[in-house]
Amino acid sequence: MILVKALILEQGKVSLQEIPRPRIEGGEVLIRVALAGVCGTDLEMIRGYIPFSGVLGHEFVGTVVEDPRDELTGHRVVADINIGCGDCCWCKKGLKNHCPGRKVLGIVHKAGVFAPFVAVPRNNLHCVPRGISDQEAVFTEPVAAALQITEQVHIPLSSRVAVLGDGRLGLLTALVLAKTGWRPLLLGHHPQKMERAENQGIETMIAEEFKGQVDFVIECTGSSRGLEQALKIIRSRGTIILKSSIAGNTEIKMAELVRREINLVGSRCGPLAPALDLINRRSLGLEELVDEIYPLSLGEEALEQAGQRGILKILIDMRDED
Amino acid sequence: MILVKALILEQGKVSLQEIPRPRIEGGEVLIRVALAGVCGTDLEMIRGYIPFSGVLGHEFVGTVVEDPRDELTGHRVVADINIGCGDCCWCKKGLKNHCPGRKVLGIVHKAGVFAPFVAVPRNNLHCVPRGISDQEAVFTEPVAAALQITEQVHIPLSSRVAVLGDGRLGLLTALVLAKTGWRPLLLGHHPQKMERAENQGIETMIAEEFKGQVDFVIECTGSSRGLEQALKIIRSRGTIILKSSIAGNTEIKMAELVRREINLVGSRCGPLAPALDLINRRSLGLEELVDEIYPLSLGEEALEQAGQRGILKILIDMRDED
Repeated sequence: MILVKALILEQGKVSLQEIPRPRIEGGEVLIRVALAGVCGTDLEMIRGYIPFSGVLGHEFVGTVVEDPRDELTGHRVVADINIGCGDCCWCKKGLKNHCPGRKVLGIVHKAGVFAPFVAVPRNNLHCVPRGISDQEAVFTEPVAAALQITEQVHIPLSSRVAVLGDGRLGLLTALVLAKTGWRPLLLGHHPQKMERAENQGIETMIAEEFKGQVDFVIECTGSSRGLEQALKIIRSRGTIILKSSIAGNTEIKMAELVRREINLVGSRCGPLAPALDLINRRSLGLEELVDEIYPLSLGEEALEQAGQRGILKILIDMRDED
Repeated sequence: MILVKALILEQGKVSLQEIPRPRIEGGEVLIRVALAGVCGTDLEMIRGYIPFSGVLGHEFVGTVVEDPRDELTGHRVVADINIGCGDCCWCKKGLKNHCPGRKVLGIVHKAGVFAPFVAVPRNNLHCVPRGISDQEAVFTEPVAAALQITEQVHIPLSSRVAVLGDGRLGLLTALVLAKTGWRPLLLGHHPQKMERAENQGIETMIAEEFKGQVDFVIECTGSSRGLEQALKIIRSRGTIILKSSIAGNTEIKMAELVRREINLVGSRCGPLAPALDLINRRSLGLEELVDEIYPLSLGEEALEQAGQRGILKILIDMRDED
């Protein structure tokens, strides 16, 4: 049995452990992970957002090293993280991210990518075009999540759009919207982070200083107070798109939603193919979001660092692992 | 000065008082109120939902008795309760119910209809067709509020739709949907109330006994627990339409809205002309919703009665008032 190192989440703690190299099951291929990204959801999971034990992590790029059909061997790939049952009405509609029996890479009943190897169903894979670097490709999943906003909600290009929150999710969402035609206003609290958006031509402002009202707010604060903030700047009949995964309960004034006829839309994972296409065709400035790259051996520190104020993207590099 | 009786809300208490007969101001006409309806919002206002002092009540039918232009004198009318400034961007778009400077009949800075006379801007009035009785016409405003649901949200006729709550609002909403093409399932707790919906061909069920999932839930419980119940029966990616005006805060699991990509839509007042047209053309069975008609002299009891369990619509009759 070949042992490999992996970052394991168990009872709210993450530790580097040696585990057996994963074996592929029916329909799966084995991927050698190159780079993995730490996402806010990983940190929320450590806080108990979803009960999960096993290898954490779901954002990655890697190369197929074992494919029973030998079609994908050697290809650089990213993966849709939702693994549907294939039989239910959701899977049949192509919405496997809502399959009630789904597994989710590093989130629900499926070992994740903070490890040198991961087994993933071949149907979940997308080949990465040559023009995209590993450091860009690792952002495919979060770019897809940002694209999901306009998959779900029609936002006219003439709309006033605010992205609330200057963390990983907020910055990436603002970038994706800005590079696909909208003119989002990024509202945050950290001038250093917002500068990285300004470098890409995005207007930014300290959240509390903005006194206007907008047609759409994209709530990316990751804070239970985000909705309250969003309600202050949304116009009546406007739409608030919720992207943050927050453990626990939030208090809201239902009467305000009714009186002002506000629309709230929950939004989660998005389509990978258009995300890859966008990364390939547009200069999104994704590398600018990377603060530091840790080797897997320092993975525990990488996760701790990712939770610090002012930090955007932390990557974990598996390329030197045996 | 002519004095008239009126039901006055002051500091959370309602009492019958003598007040001067209202005088019309620019653009207004004076209406002799015939019947007024007690709405859940009136009861919530007594509990402090909106700070208001003055004549309560906003659902009514009456006859114009004073019109400076003499165009409407003698006409039986109902009224849009939102009185916009006429100048702001909302008023110019025909959305005076969102005018930030609006007055609202018996709710915001404007004397209401639990009195024999009320002054209302002529632009807010709609003439009532002969075929509609006073007892039907008094439901125009709540029927319009129910119609607002499909004004805001596209609900395909093939959708599974549940109306949650068998109170005034829920029953009326189910009736309006059922008579305009949908097949709503009414979920409630009071077999006696639900029987009145069944008499109109609407399927009903005790809320806790329903284990399925629907595409749309219309939340009419008037309870802060309504949203939690709605989330149990909405399918992923489904839409919950919020109609209840509830004082205070409600706790929600934001992560569930995000994970299941649920849509919440606040919905308030609706268009009066189509409501009158619907009442005129379809037999909605509105009279069946009326539990009791009180004279204004027993108005305090009428409001108390309206708040009792199992009670649907209480009307106040002003026709015998001097």
